[in-house]
Amino acid sequence: MAANAASAGLKAYVFIPSDLEQGKILNSLIYGATVIGIKGHYDEVNRLCAEIAGKFGWAFVNVNMRPYYAEGSKSMGYEIMEQLGWRAPKHTVVCMASGSLLTKIQKSYQEFIKLGLVPEADYQIHGAQATGCSPISTAQKAGLDFFKPVKPNTIAKSLAIGTPADGFYALKTMKETGGSAEDITDDEIRQAIRLLAECEGIFAETAGGVTVGVAKKLIAAGKIPANASAVLCITGNGLKTMDAVNGHVGYPREIKPSLREFEALVASDEKELSR
Amino acid sequence: MAANAASAGLKAYVFIPSDLEQGKILNSLIYGATVIGIKGHYDEVNRLCAEIAGKFGWAFVNVNMRPYYAEGSKSMGYEIMEQLGWRAPKHTVVCMASGSLLTKIQKSYQEFIKLGLVPEADYQIHGAQATGCSPISTAQKAGLDFFKPVKPNTIAKSLAIGTPADGFYALKTMKETGGSAEDITDDEIRQAIRLLAECEGIFAETAGGVTVGVAKKLIAAGKIPANASAVLCITGNGLKTMDAVNGHVGYPREIKPSLREFEALVASDEKELSR
Repeated sequence: MAANAASAGLKAYVFIPSDLEQGKILNSLIYGATVIGIKGHYDEVNRLCAEIAGKFGWAFVNVNMRPYYAEGSKSMGYEIMEQLGWRAPKHTVVCMASGSLLTKIQKSYQEFIKLGLVPEADYQIHGAQATGCSPISTAQKAGLDFFKPVKPNTIAKSLAIGTPADGFYALKTMKETGGSAEDITDDEIRQAIRLLAECEGIFAETAGGVTVGVAKKLIAAGKIPANASAVLCITGNGLKTMDAVNGHVGYPREIKPSLREFEALVASDEKELSR
Repeated sequence: MAANAASAGLKAYVFIPSDLEQGKILNSLIYGATVIGIKGHYDEVNRLCAEIAGKFGWAFVNVNMRPYYAEGSKSMGYEIMEQLGWRAPKHTVVCMASGSLLTKIQKSYQEFIKLGLVPEADYQIHGAQATGCSPISTAQKAGLDFFKPVKPNTIAKSLAIGTPADGFYALKTMKETGGSAEDITDDEIRQAIRLLAECEGIFAETAGGVTVGVAKKLIAAGKIPANASAVLCITGNGLKTMDAVNGHVGYPREIKPSLREFEALVASDEKELSR
């Protein structure tokens, strides 16, 4: 939002929970936006933004401009179908904060099917959350149509919405498509970030880790057959949430710029391996 | 390199100066590469890599595989011409570490002209360095064909090559096209990163800041006419070098999730402005 406002020459205010990842804070400040850190969770930030929107008449991407923002996210679904050669995937795994993206992926699939751009097909859309903020997945697993709000506590801060605005519709979409929801712990999120990076060369932020880890769990549970094709929605770059994995991926091994020191390092590794 | 190796299932070693930016280190470790931090500058790292390549017969992107790596960078020039509607730009500003990219941009322009994909035209290619590591720009400004090696000292660590392998050819290319070189200080790099972010919504790493700041300097000096079109090669994402700007772009302003606190903040800003 800050980048697009800068590019369009608009003045921008960015409202964030004050404990947001350093990378995301800097990534708003750099564009010249006025960044307001709110001492509270996303839910409290959203409530305050709604109040400001009403009082000041300002346009908030996530409040009074939300319909445009939400419709815009359909483009992710359009691109998935286009890149698969104009078909909807059998399985799609989407991370859920407000739950909006999951419902818009469904809307995009339905639109292309109605337009005849994509053949009608049976597909499932699955939802992914962090266990530390899992109101939607908890409700889905219990077979409920409504979620119970929670207080978030997870490293996946971009998903830390305890009162998800589109939670009801996300549950409805999963029910309609026969999809499942699941959630994973912070440690599993870190492991999933590494798994994706080491296997695919893609470094995802924590939300992407949630999607990968939940997909793995759904495959293990037989909800996604291991031989079925599936699309995992990786929604952010890992450079934005480096704090989450820093210290969990090892460290560089330091040597002097000397061939002898490097040979000693390799020799000790080989000795270690042959043991 | 680490990401591509992971994606291809190859084992990877990454050799870096041990003082490299945290973001770049993590961005190699995450893919499962063995990262070796060398206590020395890029020049010492490059020398050690050459020795290891000779002794172990390993493929180094930047040593024995360098011809492929260098030719590959021509794609940046191809994309510039394609995106401009199949023409070479009148002015191109390229940051220089080894100087390789600048020479390959020139090669790409010449190839498309020879193939008839792009009309023959007069153009200049300009080189950008950080003052703290400016062997090529110093030589160019002095009208010399050869550079004098330097010990690097700059926040633009990805450009900190004191003995640039393609420096001679970069000087030759600038001479042939009538281009100029210039360099800027670390403070000017930070200002240029902000300028690009605030005007275009693009957050560049330090090397991109060097390109933008040098372009500004060349325009002020009349080397690039202010009304001429110019392409600036922004070669990396700012999220990789956040340390360079952290603390130089202000901080979020913290308030409680209260409309009253926000109104007080806005009122005090307006009072400030009306003074």
